[in-house]
Amino acid sequence: MDVTDALEDIHGADCQKISQVLARVGEKWSVLIVMYLADGPHRFSDIKRAVNGISQRMLTLCLRGLERDGLVKRTVYPDTPPRVEYELTPLGRSLIEPVTALGTWARDHIPDIDAARAAFDAREADRR
Amino acid sequence: MDVTDALEDIHGADCQKISQVLARVGEKWSVLIVMYLADGPHRFSDIKRAVNGISQRMLTLCLRGLERDGLVKRTVYPDTPPRVEYELTPLGRSLIEPVTALGTWARDHIPDIDAARAAFDAREADRR
Repeated sequence: MDVTDALEDIHGADCQKISQVLARVGEKWSVLIVMYLADGPHRFSDIKRAVNGISQRMLTLCLRGLERDGLVKRTVYPDTPPRVEYELTPLGRSLIEPVTALGTWARDHIPDIDAARAAFDAREADRR
Repeated sequence: MDVTDALEDIHGADCQKISQVLARVGEKWSVLIVMYLADGPHRFSDIKRAVNGISQRMLTLCLRGLERDGLVKRTVYPDTPPRVEYELTPLGRSLIEPVTALGTWARDHIPDIDAARAAFDAREADRR
């Protein structure tokens, strides 16, 4: 990974483009969906169950956004009733590693962040 | 990185907690700010210039959120006028690697995502 390179780019004109892509791939539900789809195709209801806390509407919007961005492929199988599965495309699979690194960081640092928030809020309360 | 581990957790009750932390650390402006602060402390105006496209208000909110989460430290130096600098805390520094991986992915895949979006929109237009 080249931090210097990446930094150079955020100084450049590409910043808005990068932030536009980040808005999708760093978005919390996208991260969890990509992590969940890492092991293969899944149905809508399975994803909804795995990514608990996501609403039906938000999952629909998210999957559609991921599909539009070429990260997820939606396949309809002509069963009765029709079965719909979602899976990562090769582009989506290339996201597994960076997204899982971020998801793992988030999972591992929940206590640190909780503690920092509590300390910050206590300082702010003292100030009043 | 342990994908299996991470996957297990998103099936568990921690999912909402992880998504709460991801809402901060995966957020597009946070990613760009953390990447920019990777090389050391910077002033508000420098960050605003580097992360182009961010509004004054959004940068204020973001930095305050990052400070509350213990990722960024704000230091006021008693110059005239007072100088305010922002730098990553040790917790914030631990974010540099995963966040830069995601930012680099975003930068490298802008053309793929642009192409996928155009193809998707063309298919949708045909369908109407």
